[in-house]
Amino acid sequence: MPPLLGSQLIGSKPSRKGDSAFRAVNPETGKDIHPEFMSATEEEVNQAVDKAVSISRKFQLKSGKSRAAFLRRIAEEIELLGEELIERAVQETGLPSARIAGERARTCGQLRMFADVAEEGSWVDARIELELPDRQPVPRPDLRRMLFPLGPIAVFGASNFPLAFSVAGGDTASAFAAGCPVIAKAHPSHPGTSELVGRAIVKAAVGEGMPDGVFSLLQGGKEVGAWLAKADGIEAIGFTGSLAAGRALSDLASKRLKPIPVFAEMGSVNPVFVLPGAMAKECEEIATGFANSLLMGVGQFCTNPGLLIGVMGDDFDQLVKSVAQKVKGSAPGVMLNQGIAESYGKGVADRSKLSNIQIEASAEAMRGCIGSGVVFSTSGAEFLVDQSLQAELFGPATLVVKCNDLDQLVQVVDALEGQLTGTIFHGGEDSNYVETLAPKLAKKVGRIIFNGYPTGVEVGSAMQHGGPYPATTDSRFTSVGTAAILRWARPITWQNAPEELLPPELQNDNPHGIWRQTNGVLGKD
Amino acid sequence: MPPLLGSQLIGSKPSRKGDSAFRAVNPETGKDIHPEFMSATEEEVNQAVDKAVSISRKFQLKSGKSRAAFLRRIAEEIELLGEELIERAVQETGLPSARIAGERARTCGQLRMFADVAEEGSWVDARIELELPDRQPVPRPDLRRMLFPLGPIAVFGASNFPLAFSVAGGDTASAFAAGCPVIAKAHPSHPGTSELVGRAIVKAAVGEGMPDGVFSLLQGGKEVGAWLAKADGIEAIGFTGSLAAGRALSDLASKRLKPIPVFAEMGSVNPVFVLPGAMAKECEEIATGFANSLLMGVGQFCTNPGLLIGVMGDDFDQLVKSVAQKVKGSAPGVMLNQGIAESYGKGVADRSKLSNIQIEASAEAMRGCIGSGVVFSTSGAEFLVDQSLQAELFGPATLVVKCNDLDQLVQVVDALEGQLTGTIFHGGEDSNYVETLAPKLAKKVGRIIFNGYPTGVEVGSAMQHGGPYPATTDSRFTSVGTAAILRWARPITWQNAPEELLPPELQNDNPHGIWRQTNGVLGKD
Repeated sequence: MPPLLGSQLIGSKPSRKGDSAFRAVNPETGKDIHPEFMSATEEEVNQAVDKAVSISRKFQLKSGKSRAAFLRRIAEEIELLGEELIERAVQETGLPSARIAGERARTCGQLRMFADVAEEGSWVDARIELELPDRQPVPRPDLRRMLFPLGPIAVFGASNFPLAFSVAGGDTASAFAAGCPVIAKAHPSHPGTSELVGRAIVKAAVGEGMPDGVFSLLQGGKEVGAWLAKADGIEAIGFTGSLAAGRALSDLASKRLKPIPVFAEMGSVNPVFVLPGAMAKECEEIATGFANSLLMGVGQFCTNPGLLIGVMGDDFDQLVKSVAQKVKGSAPGVMLNQGIAESYGKGVADRSKLSNIQIEASAEAMRGCIGSGVVFSTSGAEFLVDQSLQAELFGPATLVVKCNDLDQLVQVVDALEGQLTGTIFHGGEDSNYVETLAPKLAKKVGRIIFNGYPTGVEVGSAMQHGGPYPATTDSRFTSVGTAAILRWARPITWQNAPEELLPPELQNDNPHGIWRQTNGVLGKD
Repeated sequence: MPPLLGSQLIGSKPSRKGDSAFRAVNPETGKDIHPEFMSATEEEVNQAVDKAVSISRKFQLKSGKSRAAFLRRIAEEIELLGEELIERAVQETGLPSARIAGERARTCGQLRMFADVAEEGSWVDARIELELPDRQPVPRPDLRRMLFPLGPIAVFGASNFPLAFSVAGGDTASAFAAGCPVIAKAHPSHPGTSELVGRAIVKAAVGEGMPDGVFSLLQGGKEVGAWLAKADGIEAIGFTGSLAAGRALSDLASKRLKPIPVFAEMGSVNPVFVLPGAMAKECEEIATGFANSLLMGVGQFCTNPGLLIGVMGDDFDQLVKSVAQKVKGSAPGVMLNQGIAESYGKGVADRSKLSNIQIEASAEAMRGCIGSGVVFSTSGAEFLVDQSLQAELFGPATLVVKCNDLDQLVQVVDALEGQLTGTIFHGGEDSNYVETLAPKLAKKVGRIIFNGYPTGVEVGSAMQHGGPYPATTDSRFTSVGTAAILRWARPITWQNAPEELLPPELQNDNPHGIWRQTNGVLGKD
């Protein structure tokens, strides 16, 4: 690829009208990386949105098959970026190249998965009720309903997944699959990675004959994000990041003259409960798995296990001791950027000073952009009265909650805020308690895990990545898996429409062969 | 039934702790109706919510079959109220008894429809991905996802449908079907009707062994509503009413520490476009149908046609003249309550004074609680520059928009706010324009109608009753039809769950025989 431009991409055209530039910083060296990126101006933001609005209908009219070809082409173009992409992402994020390569595979896999969803086509939940002209007292009209693309979507890239939750990540892939143009705001931590991926999307769009404006890329910080979220033509927002930023975006969107949906995935502390029966048998195995899940990627995952909860006693002491040892012996890691490292360092320092907190393991003093694993502990009683202990420390820190008994452990479940995930380790003799605990935990989470670890979010049809607030702003939807497409559409009913005005999905002969409800009965006829 | 209590129903128990009472007013006579109703106190509101929270899990565990029996029993109990219900509703709303009888049939039909949906069970969108223990580089866990009830729902009754959109209306029926307890706030215009229906629900709940607290009924005004919307245990809100009240509720909910979804259906002006080809042939038929749709129920429907749009010329003049004649010749009607009648009267008077408005037909001066049909007109150019002309006048008023040509008519579509419905009358020679117009109109509405009228909302699987803001607060959902159940649930994924902890819908042998996606393939196995 030609060298990085440091510009916006307004549709297929680079644009550079601003006067406020920034550079990415290599978190490992602390040094700026070439080149400069210009932040978008409000005018550029609106141009991108207007362009998306102007071709929205054109893109909608592209068949699922043609959207699928576009998505597959994006995956190919990303793969063709080869080492250049890996190297740039490593420089900008401090993540190891194997991790970036794995994330690239996940990203391309996601694009191809949504290609399949778009091509297969049944996601539109088509429902037809045939006319009943002789019904008494009034005839029933012909009614046909399906999910229809919302229009231009704003996607906010995440810091911790420079590929899979960024410019061509799950939000963008699912929005394209649904038939919505995307305006992506790059995360300012990795503008170069974002530009490379953005150019790959533009290339795919041109190559597959998509209308110019189906995709735009904006660089910049909060101000650019706010312009985008307020722009008239934006119909919904996808976001992955912090609670503060997500709630701010959501508040902004709900105060618009015409409020729009915001799908903000804001992370959580992903409690892990270990019941007596599990510890009796597999204490060491659980300790190893937990520590790995905690330390992986310097703890910078939204499903990172930030709470470990059990009942005081020899087994749990042993488990905690073993986790603490592994954390103490772990190597510190480069965090994604200075801001995250500082915020993690400050969070750990503040928590260390609390009178209701003990430190079970602290690997090393924080310095520069480096983060180290930390294990705090508190009692069940303290946890129940101090809600601030539920706050996420984004990084490899966890809080052990030592309950007096299983009843107190159940109280802890009831006191939890909304979570992306919740985990229960249990053994045979725990069955009574699991039966009480599991439904209570399910109420608090998007995904409940048994004898496993919260990190490692499968991308498939049965994934739910989204939980009650504050984990996400809208627990009714997922940002991972095939169902993520449902965020970008709304139902429309056509009443007594002439056949030629109906979308193909609702036409009599079902040209795409999708699953539909006809008079309430599911079938492909 | 024993005489009206004028109390709250907190679960199955009457409660009367307040000191602020009110009476229903017969809009026809202007006289108070016996007895007094006590407004709920904040304590009573919280008691109702707490009771719902405490039995939420118990109700969730009831099978679809048992929830279906409950819903069918509610329909029976409502029917058993017989003439008492009809008479009370007529007194409180001024609606004719035939209309109330029809609405009762619709309400009971809805309850039975949601019973069928709950019993059939496939609405939960179950998705299973089987374990792949040998997958490289890591095994795939077993993942099972389905829609799960949210918990206690607050339902706000509407003034204009004392049965079908009130205490046992579509919101309540769909919430029960989904497995959510309901706290209903009666509309203060028809507290007696609400109590009768509420007692029928309680009777059904007791009769079918539902947990006490599955339903509560609160009487009162805005203050009671705000307490309810702010109560901690409420997970979502269903509302039908005005834009001002709906937006206020929605703002309140989004400002909660933990925001909750609000499904507010706030009405719209339901534009009707008449193209040249339609007028040429069926001018008189359209005029009759339009006037009937406008005047029916004294115009107090959210799908009332408040805009009639066409291109100036002899045909459209004739159509407008004919509509105006029918409106002039129509009898005035009793409106639902003094507030609505005053607001309608004021809206008509204000609009009449505008310099950009002509009056084509005004049936009679407003007086008391009586509303008369009115036909205003304006030019396309005036309509395009004055957004206030899009405001709904709740009642039998419509605004004719006379466009210069079809291009201006298309501009009018582009300038429209979100609507529940949009209608196009067209004939053979209009096909080019319909092709341009229909997709633009679809973008603005929840339901697009061809050669029909917006009033008469079918209750079935293919209905969409909900459109872009300001028609509703959440265009992704419907408040009418089987899909309305989707408002009250969120997806949860079970990962590696023991079979006995899975909901039946996700168990291996599919005991309810529902449609499920297994490894992405839809089937009943």
